[in-house]
Amino acid sequence: MEKLSDFIAFKSISADPKFESECTDCAIWLSDYLQGFGVKTELIPTPTGKPVVYGRIGSGDTKTLIYGHYDVQPPEPIELWKTDPFVLTEREGRVYGRGAQDNKGQLWYVIQAVKARADSLKEEVIFLIEGEEESGSVGLSQILSSIKGKIKADTLLVCDTGTIDERVGALTMGLRGICHLEVQIIGPSKDLHSGVHGGVAPNPSLALVKMLGTLHDENGRIGIPGFYDSVKEPLKEELALAEKFPITEAMYHGLTGVMPFGGEKGKSIALRRGFLPTIEINGLRSGHIDEGSKTIIPSTANAKLSIRLAYDQDPKETLELVTNFLKLQTPLGLTFKIIDSCAAGRALRVPISSPAVARAKNALIKSTGVEPLYIWEGASIPVLVSLTEVSGAVPVLVGFGLEEDSIHAPNESFKITQWDKGYKFALEFFG
Amino acid sequence: MEKLSDFIAFKSISADPKFESECTDCAIWLSDYLQGFGVKTELIPTPTGKPVVYGRIGSGDTKTLIYGHYDVQPPEPIELWKTDPFVLTEREGRVYGRGAQDNKGQLWYVIQAVKARADSLKEEVIFLIEGEEESGSVGLSQILSSIKGKIKADTLLVCDTGTIDERVGALTMGLRGICHLEVQIIGPSKDLHSGVHGGVAPNPSLALVKMLGTLHDENGRIGIPGFYDSVKEPLKEELALAEKFPITEAMYHGLTGVMPFGGEKGKSIALRRGFLPTIEINGLRSGHIDEGSKTIIPSTANAKLSIRLAYDQDPKETLELVTNFLKLQTPLGLTFKIIDSCAAGRALRVPISSPAVARAKNALIKSTGVEPLYIWEGASIPVLVSLTEVSGAVPVLVGFGLEEDSIHAPNESFKITQWDKGYKFALEFFG
Repeated sequence: MEKLSDFIAFKSISADPKFESECTDCAIWLSDYLQGFGVKTELIPTPTGKPVVYGRIGSGDTKTLIYGHYDVQPPEPIELWKTDPFVLTEREGRVYGRGAQDNKGQLWYVIQAVKARADSLKEEVIFLIEGEEESGSVGLSQILSSIKGKIKADTLLVCDTGTIDERVGALTMGLRGICHLEVQIIGPSKDLHSGVHGGVAPNPSLALVKMLGTLHDENGRIGIPGFYDSVKEPLKEELALAEKFPITEAMYHGLTGVMPFGGEKGKSIALRRGFLPTIEINGLRSGHIDEGSKTIIPSTANAKLSIRLAYDQDPKETLELVTNFLKLQTPLGLTFKIIDSCAAGRALRVPISSPAVARAKNALIKSTGVEPLYIWEGASIPVLVSLTEVSGAVPVLVGFGLEEDSIHAPNESFKITQWDKGYKFALEFFG
Repeated sequence: MEKLSDFIAFKSISADPKFESECTDCAIWLSDYLQGFGVKTELIPTPTGKPVVYGRIGSGDTKTLIYGHYDVQPPEPIELWKTDPFVLTEREGRVYGRGAQDNKGQLWYVIQAVKARADSLKEEVIFLIEGEEESGSVGLSQILSSIKGKIKADTLLVCDTGTIDERVGALTMGLRGICHLEVQIIGPSKDLHSGVHGGVAPNPSLALVKMLGTLHDENGRIGIPGFYDSVKEPLKEELALAEKFPITEAMYHGLTGVMPFGGEKGKSIALRRGFLPTIEINGLRSGHIDEGSKTIIPSTANAKLSIRLAYDQDPKETLELVTNFLKLQTPLGLTFKIIDSCAAGRALRVPISSPAVARAKNALIKSTGVEPLYIWEGASIPVLVSLTEVSGAVPVLVGFGLEEDSIHAPNESFKITQWDKGYKFALEFFG
C-alpha cells in the first residue's frame, strides 16, 4: 500500500469549487506516479475543469480499459471523524480516510497489480481515471465521444463496487438505466379557501394523486400501456445466478425497516431489483406542509419521479411515454408542467457468457478461493454505460468494498484483507 | 358611529397572549357601554382567559340572541397600513382600522339599533359577544353547554358576513361542516436509495397517492361507499334561490385564476359549493421537496385533508368512514398512521320557510330596497352550529361586508353607506 497515503492526502473534493486546484494537483501526482512505472500518460482537460488522467502501458492483441476516479466525497461532518480524513490511518485491520475505499483505495490495488505486471502484460492496458465521479461525471461525459479512438478496448475493468460477504467475491452483471422527471400541476393563481372553493375550484393535488395513482396497477406492475414492450427479461441462467444472492425477507427488514413487498407481486427480489423497471416517487410537495391544519386548495402540486429502466428500454422513449401518460390525465382547467426531465442513461447488462466475465470469474476464484456472486444491481451509473458503448468493451465490475466501509460517510475505511484480495484478483486478472 | 373609535382603539388581538389584558379591558368597556343603555350585563369567564360579554335587555314572548366578537386579527404587516390600525380613520367614504368591519364595525350597527329601540323592544334581546372568534372560539365552545339556560332563544342573529354587491343584501342560509385529517404512511426506517431498493422496498408515497387517488371517481364524485348516505340535498326552492347567485365561469376564472371545474361533473356551482360535501387535499409532503433530484424512496409520506360536510352528515361518522376507507388500502409492509383527526363540526342549514328568515328578509328589503340574495356558503363556522344547537334558535346570518373591505389584511375598512344599511336593517329587524 506504498504511496496510498500520499494519494489520500489530496483533498480532491470535486463537488466543492474551492478544491479545484487540489483536484488538478491530485491528477498531476497520479499521472506522475503512473509514469514512474512506464505508463505513457496524458492529462485530458474537460469543460468542467477537472482533468482526466489517461495512460497506456503494455501491448498485445487485446486491450483492457481501466476506469476509476481520483475525486472523493466531501468529508463533512468533520467532527464525527476519529482521525483526520486526509491522513490515512491504520487501526484494527483497516485503513481510515476519505477515499480509503471509494475509489482511491480500490483503484490503488488495480494500479499496484498493473505495476507488478508491468513487464509481463499480455495486452495493452489503458487507464481512464476521472475527477468528477462524485459529482455526476459531467466533464468526462462531455468529452467521451471526442476521445473515442483512445479508449477502444475489449474489456472495461471497473473496481468501484462491493460484495456482501467478505468470503465471497462479486461480479456486478447489470445496472438499471435511469430517467428523472419532475411534474407540476398548476391550478388557482394563489391558494384558495377550501371551504369557499372546495368542490368548485379544481384541486391540483387531487389531480396529481389521481394521475400518479394510475402509474401502477393493483399488482404493483407499471400500468402504462407499452411500458414493458422493449424490456428484455433475463435468461433462465442469469435469473438462477441472480437468485443466489443470499437475502431473506427478514434480513431485508433488518437492514431497511420494511419488508421487501414493493414492486410487482409474485416476482423475486432479484428479478424486481435487477431485471425489472420501477417508477418511484422521490418527493411530493403541495400546499401546507408544516405542522397543523390550513384549509386551502393549493395553487400547485409537485412530484419528483425516478424511473429505473430495465435492459433494453430506451431512456428518451420511456420518459416520453411516462410523461404523456401523466399529461393526458390532466383534468380540464388545470395545467400540466414539466419542471425537470432527464433521460440520463440506459441499463447495462453484461453478457454472462463473454470471455471477459470468465476471465474475471477465474481471477476471483483464485483470489477468494470460492465461486463469486453475480449481482444484477438496481442502481444506475450512466457514465459506465456510455463508456461501455463508446469503448466497445465488455464491462467487468468487480469490487471488494463492504457495507461497513461507510463510504460517503465519516470514518470511511477499507479492510486491509479486502485490499489484499483486490490486489490478488487484479494480479490474476493481468496475469 | 358614536364611540366606535373607542371600541377600535382596544388592541383586542386574541391570537397573541401579550394582548390578553387589552382583550379583558375591551370586554369590560363593551359591557359598560351596553349597561349604559339598560342592558343587564355579565362577564362570563372562559378557561382560555378571554371573557364572554353577556347581556339581556327587553322582554316579550320571544328571544333573539345576538352573537358577535370583540376580538380582532393581528394587524401585521403594520408597515402596509396607511394609518394606525387602532385609530379609526375616515377616508373617502370608508372608515379604516383593524376590526372596522370584522366584527367591531358590523357588531356596532347591531348594538346601535338595539340601543335606539331600547325602550320599544317587543322581545328579549340577549347579547353573546366572545373574544376568541379569530382564534377558534375555543373558550366559548368549552362553556357553551354550561350556559345553555342563558342563551335559549328563538332567533340567533349574526352580523359577521358579507354580500357580493352593495346594492343587494344577503342572507347566509347554510354553512358546510368540517373535519380535518392528516395521515402518514410509514415505510423504511430512513430514506432508501431508489436504485438499490426501487421495486423491492414498498414506497410510502406511491401507496399514499394510490389511496388518495381513489377518494373521487372519474366524475369527481366521492368514491367512498356510504359517504353520501345521510346527505340531504336541497329542496328545489332552495336550489333555485342558490342558483341566483350571480357568478359565471368567466367571473370565477377572473377571481381565482382557474375555471370552476372542480367537484362533481354536471352539478351547478351553487350545488357543489353549498349543498354537496367535498374532500380536499390541503397539503402533501414526502421525501425530497427541495430543488433538484434526489433518488430516494421516502421513509414517510403525509397528506393533510379537509372534509367539508353537507347537511346532515355526522362529522364523527364521516371522519371514521374516510379514515377507514384509506386505512384499508394500506399495502402490506407499510404502516398507516393518523397524525391529526378532528371532527370539528356539522353543517348548518337555515330552514327557508322559518319566520326568522322572513323577518330578516323583510328587514333587508326595507334597508336595501331590493330582494336579498340567499347564499348557501361552502365554508364552515363550527361555533355557530354549536350555538344554534345549544340555543335552539333559528340562525339568521346577515352582513354588509364587501370583498374590498380587506378583512384580516392591512387597511381593513368598512364602507360608511354599508354601515348605514346594516344599521337600518337592524333597526327594522328590532322594529
